Amino acid sequence: MERVIIDMDEVIADPMGDMIDWYEQKYGTKVDYSKMAGSWVKGFPEEHHALVWERLRSPGFFRHLPVMKDSVEVLREMNERYEIFIVSAAMEFPNSLKDKYDWLQEHFPFFSWRQLTLCGDKKLVYGDYMIDDHSRNLVHFTGKKLLYTSPHNLAETEYQRLGSWAEARTIFLK
Amino acid sequence: MERVIIDMDEVIADPMGDMIDWYEQKYGTKVDYSKMAGSWVKGFPEEHHALVWERLRSPGFFRHLPVMKDSVEVLREMNERYEIFIVSAAMEFPNSLKDKYDWLQEHFPFFSWRQLTLCGDKKLVYGDYMIDDHSRNLVHFTGKKLLYTSPHNLAETEYQRLGSWAEARTIFLK
Repeated sequence: MERVIIDMDEVIADPMGDMIDWYEQKYGTKVDYSKMAGSWVKGFPEEHHALVWERLRSPGFFRHLPVMKDSVEVLREMNERYEIFIVSAAMEFPNSLKDKYDWLQEHFPFFSWRQLTLCGDKKLVYGDYMIDDHSRNLVHFTGKKLLYTSPHNLAETEYQRLGSWAEARTIFLK
Repeated sequence: MERVIIDMDEVIADPMGDMIDWYEQKYGTKVDYSKMAGSWVKGFPEEHHALVWERLRSPGFFRHLPVMKDSVEVLREMNERYEIFIVSAAMEFPNSLKDKYDWLQEHFPFFSWRQLTLCGDKKLVYGDYMIDDHSRNLVHFTGKKLLYTSPHNLAETEYQRLGSWAEARTIFLK
């Protein structure tokens, strides 16, 4: 079985979407998608960056995130045909660790705890495919790299893109 | 720099030692080291296995474990000469995740959060050396494997052994 390594945030979970909904409702101000290059936090008004980081770091934030469209259905099928590992660079947010475990168990109950890795640096994992929204995670990977499209990475040109889980279905399940 | 992947439990942290101290003090009964082959829990009287597992799974257990002798001093030096990753198969104990992060920060402050990985299965990590007390973690590894000696693995004959951190000093820092 080929091994596919899949990121969590902005790939199967949607912290950016949750933060935007919360922010726009609280302040009545729209975020600026055109400023997100490199990090979606930059799309928020500068005076509120510290607030956004504080919410990202708080216990519970990663527990109740929305699920990315079609990811459950496509990954349920992929899990039958590939060796899937969910790998999240979560150590920057130590309060997220148990939240990410619980979130995955709730929304992707077909994955066992053996399939989850929470790390500081993805350079030590290997496999046949990696799906990630950050080029810094793809750069050291020795297999095939797929950049999951997100507002913060629209200017990247180095990697083959994956635009949605519907597209993943056509690549991995045809 | 060569990459060295190092386990936590029974290699740099001592859950078995902590459990034995707690148990012998609570019950006044000695554990039986001769019954530990495969899992140190088997050295405890059978009627108390469930109790031992319950304590292993409880929040806080992994936060206050003793540090294995000489591991801090030797790893502080190794960290200058090797690319070190601490990799623990911790997903079986989801309550241990934040505890392990905090424990490492306290006792090994020279490691950054980028150097810690908490996983379900070690088969997806690669490097030049792996130091681990379980052959199930070494078996898929493609680099050089060192079995850290522990009461539960004394019958293993397949792997080169590492008996102590003093011995690691002679191998990695000569």
